Amino acid sequence: MIKHFTKDEILESDSFFRRNLINCLSGYKSLNLIGTKSPEGISNLAPFSQVFHIGASPPLVGILFRPHTVKRDTLENILETGYFTMNQVSPSFYKEAHWTSARWEGSEFLHTGLEELYLDDFSAPYVKGSPLQLGCQLVETQTLKVNQTVFVIGSIEHIYVEEKGLRTDGSLDLNVLESVTVSGLDEYHVAKKLARLSYAKPDREVEEI
Amino acid sequence: MIKHFTKDEILESDSFFRRNLINCLSGYKSLNLIGTKSPEGISNLAPFSQVFHIGASPPLVGILFRPHTVKRDTLENILETGYFTMNQVSPSFYKEAHWTSARWEGSEFLHTGLEELYLDDFSAPYVKGSPLQLGCQLVETQTLKVNQTVFVIGSIEHIYVEEKGLRTDGSLDLNVLESVTVSGLDEYHVAKKLARLSYAKPDREVEEI
Repeated sequence: MIKHFTKDEILESDSFFRRNLINCLSGYKSLNLIGTKSPEGISNLAPFSQVFHIGASPPLVGILFRPHTVKRDTLENILETGYFTMNQVSPSFYKEAHWTSARWEGSEFLHTGLEELYLDDFSAPYVKGSPLQLGCQLVETQTLKVNQTVFVIGSIEHIYVEEKGLRTDGSLDLNVLESVTVSGLDEYHVAKKLARLSYAKPDREVEEI
Repeated sequence: MIKHFTKDEILESDSFFRRNLINCLSGYKSLNLIGTKSPEGISNLAPFSQVFHIGASPPLVGILFRPHTVKRDTLENILETGYFTMNQVSPSFYKEAHWTSARWEGSEFLHTGLEELYLDDFSAPYVKGSPLQLGCQLVETQTLKVNQTVFVIGSIEHIYVEEKGLRTDGSLDLNVLESVTVSGLDEYHVAKKLARLSYAKPDREVEEI
């Protein structure tokens, strides 16, 4: 059976129901902890599920932030200092990763049990034990007219990855890295590969590679 | 063992290696087939992995398109007609979904075995059998200065979802819907839930709900 919602029915639904539903529609999302440091030297860590590939040459990453209408430590630290880290989450610390989203006073590292790590004189903190860590520098921001969502683009300055997950062709085995994926607002998953598929061409069916 | 790449090492690496690596860094991505129709009436279907939640009230979705420097049927059809559908992919047709990315002459529906479906006088085609289908209308586009990536925002006008995946709180059980997630350029996965977690507060550890 198929359930159909029109836009009017969505808008008239309970706000909690609507928020859950709409947040699930985009499907599985990546999960990264973004580490920053304020100009005053206070470290910050927060979970983000809206991270995107922008380009490979130069290597760029994009992050969507909710409208900047209330205090948002991560966004403000990035805008003020220009640096941030992205740290993928594994099952051994996904609950601590979720917990960083609480309204803590002071650094999330002091409260949640996650440990900060500083590498290569990079000013923003990495998360110790994360299987895939990126050190990034702010390049550009844009604000969407429709609802003031903020889109931040960063250049990838450093990549640290557990070697067991790096294949010889450059691709990463996220199953081996045990990257966690998130759906909606609060649901966490691991993934299991179906297949890698050959480059798609009209003259032959795709094959597993 | 941790492998470290600096930006210079990334830029100097083989272009195939670099493309694979950088495309994997954002983690697991959602997979949607976007259905459109040209002003001349030719339907089009293409896979997209860069789809985002923009807002719940009104319900909005965002899609990133590669720079508009070559012919891009999906983007052009959206800009010219204002309408598109998004269709989540399940394991029963992920190979056909991948195959839609080949350079077909004419409609991908004619070649790949996927069937088009028209609902509620909506002009863009849905994919028959998809467990979660959205009918969307163009709201806004922005082009990123850094590399001319195009960001398209659509309003969600219709949602069709298999009832077995819709929970009473509005959230979707993507494991039950068997939504497929993609990593890098060519690797497909299903997911398995770890847990849903309670709203994070500083005064107590998060719990499974």
